[in-house]
Amino acid sequence: MSYNLLKGKRGIIFGALDENSIAWKTAVRVHEEGGTFVLTNAPIALRMGTIKNLAEQTGSEVIPADATSLEDLENLVTKSMEILGGKIDFVLHSIGMSVNVRKGRHYTDMNYDWTTKGWDISAVSFHKVMQTLYKADAMSEWGSIVALTYMAAQRTFPDYNDMADNKSYLESIARSFGYFFGKEKKVRVNTISQSPTPTTAGQGVKGFDGFISYAEKMSPLGNATALDCANYTVTLFSDLTKRVTMQNLYNDGGFSNTGVSQEVIERFTEE
Amino acid sequence: MSYNLLKGKRGIIFGALDENSIAWKTAVRVHEEGGTFVLTNAPIALRMGTIKNLAEQTGSEVIPADATSLEDLENLVTKSMEILGGKIDFVLHSIGMSVNVRKGRHYTDMNYDWTTKGWDISAVSFHKVMQTLYKADAMSEWGSIVALTYMAAQRTFPDYNDMADNKSYLESIARSFGYFFGKEKKVRVNTISQSPTPTTAGQGVKGFDGFISYAEKMSPLGNATALDCANYTVTLFSDLTKRVTMQNLYNDGGFSNTGVSQEVIERFTEE
Amino acid sequence: MSYNLLKGKRGIIFGALDENSIAWKTAVRVHEEGGTFVLTNAPIALRMGTIKNLAEQTGSEVIPADATSLEDLENLVTKSMEILGGKIDFVLHSIGMSVNVRKGRHYTDMNYDWTTKGWDISAVSFHKVMQTLYKADAMSEWGSIVALTYMAAQRTFPDYNDMADNKSYLESIARSFGYFFGKEKKVRVNTISQSPTPTTAGQGVKGFDGFISYAEKMSPLGNATALDCANYTVTLFSDLTKRVTMQNLYNDGGFSNTGVSQEVIERFTEE
Amino acid sequence: MSYNLLKGKRGIIFGALDENSIAWKTAVRVHEEGGTFVLTNAPIALRMGTIKNLAEQTGSEVIPADATSLEDLENLVTKSMEILGGKIDFVLHSIGMSVNVRKGRHYTDMNYDWTTKGWDISAVSFHKVMQTLYKADAMSEWGSIVALTYMAAQRTFPDYNDMADNKSYLESIARSFGYFFGKEKKVRVNTISQSPTPTTAGQGVKGFDGFISYAEKMSPLGNATALDCANYTVTLFSDLTKRVTMQNLYNDGGFSNTGVSQEVIERFTEE
Repeated sequence: MSYNLLKGKRGIIFGALDENSIAWKTAVRVHEEGGTFVLTNAPIALRMGTIKNLAEQTGSEVIPADATSLEDLENLVTKSMEILGGKIDFVLHSIGMSVNVRKGRHYTDMNYDWTTKGWDISAVSFHKVMQTLYKADAMSEWGSIVALTYMAAQRTFPDYNDMADNKSYLESIARSFGYFFGKEKKVRVNTISQSPTPTTAGQGVKGFDGFISYAEKMSPLGNATALDCANYTVTLFSDLTKRVTMQNLYNDGGFSNTGVSQEVIERFTEE
Repeated sequence: MSYNLLKGKRGIIFGALDENSIAWKTAVRVHEEGGTFVLTNAPIALRMGTIKNLAEQTGSEVIPADATSLEDLENLVTKSMEILGGKIDFVLHSIGMSVNVRKGRHYTDMNYDWTTKGWDISAVSFHKVMQTLYKADAMSEWGSIVALTYMAAQRTFPDYNDMADNKSYLESIARSFGYFFGKEKKVRVNTISQSPTPTTAGQGVKGFDGFISYAEKMSPLGNATALDCANYTVTLFSDLTKRVTMQNLYNDGGFSNTGVSQEVIERFTEE
Repeated sequence: MSYNLLKGKRGIIFGALDENSIAWKTAVRVHEEGGTFVLTNAPIALRMGTIKNLAEQTGSEVIPADATSLEDLENLVTKSMEILGGKIDFVLHSIGMSVNVRKGRHYTDMNYDWTTKGWDISAVSFHKVMQTLYKADAMSEWGSIVALTYMAAQRTFPDYNDMADNKSYLESIARSFGYFFGKEKKVRVNTISQSPTPTTAGQGVKGFDGFISYAEKMSPLGNATALDCANYTVTLFSDLTKRVTMQNLYNDGGFSNTGVSQEVIERFTEE
Repeated sequence: MSYNLLKGKRGIIFGALDENSIAWKTAVRVHEEGGTFVLTNAPIALRMGTIKNLAEQTGSEVIPADATSLEDLENLVTKSMEILGGKIDFVLHSIGMSVNVRKGRHYTDMNYDWTTKGWDISAVSFHKVMQTLYKADAMSEWGSIVALTYMAAQRTFPDYNDMADNKSYLESIARSFGYFFGKEKKVRVNTISQSPTPTTAGQGVKGFDGFISYAEKMSPLGNATALDCANYTVTLFSDLTKRVTMQNLYNDGGFSNTGVSQEVIERFTEE
């Protein structure tokens, strides 16, 4: 499936680790739709993952960047414009990590240094990316910036821990920066709130399998896949959604607006 | 428990059927808090229920009124002011009925005459009550109007049928009329979105037991009871919430902002 | 601009009156994207408007249908499948009318017969369209149904009158029916909440010019145009948004998430 | 006005600076309602303000605490229980400060060290307060914790800067911690989203006067005052709202659900 929806458009894609990554699928789909881009990830993620395969497959260059480092981001933006031959039309931010989750600290027993680090990586990095682009005047008019988020920003999922708060902050950044990016540069900023997705990153979360099974039964169309998310992102990068901005958009098979499903009720009626 | 929170206040309470009714508990609590009121319900509900006991217990009069009839409502408002000796300070609207639900018609196979009737009773009646009060200039300044609703207005519960759409309409009326009642008369209008509650009316809904059990396990504080709702309503009728208006307020033990609970995940992990 | 996004897809488009209609622009864009469709509107609207020009331009047939009449809708669905040669992939519902607005009745002084009529046309018609499609099993798997709505469903705009309540009901139908259409037929149902748009229908609303000017100044990207809405609808009809369902999607230049803009504050600081 | 609503209840009130503070008014009202409490603020705020007058007026002790310091918070909680003679029934968190705002840094040109500091003070402090209470098992069953927030968490106000993102994070903490505090200790956690209020802290914000004037004209009941907020908080501390938790509650005269008011439209029609 290809429509040339992104022909001639240039971008930066953060966060492709391996084939399971949403950012990876997005890169593949953007390439199929005619877009060109630079891939980036933190140096350690580049070592762990297989991003070189993706770069070859899509004819892209990889620029390492720690998304919490303004210096790295400035370098990334400058080099990307050189490599791609012009201003940036689209950006995907798919970055998130909680040290508290990784190290098994409960939400009621946080290590605040870890909280700060996770917040910086998962949320503030989005502001840093946009501030760097904004100051460098690096975005084209009617460009599009998308960050991936999760509904834990609105409702509590007990194992999601401080990532819930980070995602709330991230979504707020999308609105706050979206206001100025819209007014001053005609750039739109949105977040996609995706179904739980069995990525390599997600698999570490406790209770993830039970939750995916629950979400599948709650969602009238089933959980959205990584490919669904890639496709939705393509529409947001395209010229067909020019005045959609500052929104949090659910790509979740209807989970967010389902109070309960028949299958779930039955599980509680049997007892 | 009594604080004289409503001392000297006069009101009208719609929808008390029997001891299980939220409106019944509210009447009892309002009485304990020093408020005086008129009780009203549709003639048929008055025959079926035991409202006379409530009237005796609270020293109230009962005025029959079909809440879809402007004539009945005009009579109710006029007589209530006579009986209570002045303008109205508080109103509780606790009315709802879907013919499609009662007669077992599925949401995808509605009888639209029944849909219209249920909409008139469950939603438009709230507008009619307020329009009658507004035209008669029957509300005191800083008076308070509350209607009971359910979260199906925001998220789908498969057995809730067209009551979901009726509740959405009802909540919209609260905002729309709340604007004018606020501007012109300094009256506030809110809805309380209550946990599923085992009232006599609610018990007829298919799958209700399974759903109540699910909601109980999803809500960090458990389902709110009819008494909880009565108490919350008392605060909204009091002078302590004067600038809260046009809001939909969840009284649900946290259900509305819980994505999933540990107990529910476990039910889906065991498989 | 054309990407063949809707190549091979068949649909029904309700509500194109004249060149200013959002439905008109959508028909043009869907045609450019390779979709084929039947146009429909109420008999009186067909007489008043210029839909024949649109039919010629897009190679479409016009089937008159009163969207409140089940008989008309059944005829429309049957004939559309014959004409288009198969099941339906997409439907646009762009229908709305308030008799109270037209006749200048204030929200606090409604004529309830008119309220009922406007509700039937503006909101219930959406249920009737979907129930007819559902019963006839007329939608293709992964088909997409879109209705147009307005943010008055969430927040009060004093001149929008009972259309606010109608739009709330409409959006609730999208969720309620979206649940069943998703589960049973893998069909998605969404609403687009559009900026105020100077259509022929909208122009009759009192205070509309002041409001459009305010909305323009509040929206970081300016008001979304009818063409923007047509383009957004195309993405929702395409295969790129398969798991987006039961959502209300703002196409409004950021208005919905802007608390106030600099320009608006300044207007209130000058005094 | 006094109802003995909080008779016998013990609490901690953060953030009373001077007579204009919402926390100050809340302390006065809680005292009138029979509650006893410890007042606390950062050492520097204690020097700048006039909290001793409040302590005398309400018969309270003052314990200095930097709300970002776990050590200070542990000391505060321990001493408060000693002074008050038992577990804590209510807590008010009214703390917020953005270094970027104070130093005039624009949202698109943030100093991230300042961002981190403001986030720690304005948002993480709420988590630290709750974690300290939770670990010390210091809250009574059915206790109530309230934090003050602002609607910038949902919609952009251009001068509110990174406080918008901080408030989003704060509200997320209320939900996340509210889940565990509810499940494990039967404690409720909510935020009140208050009208713009001319406190000493608020007055420093650029464009504040124009904004207050706009909000006043937009709110059907006018802006909620500090006293309104104090009264609303009293209801949330009382036993009448036991199952209201994880909610963000607007106390704003209807601003949040008003799309535009007649007065505002007229301002844009005159041109």
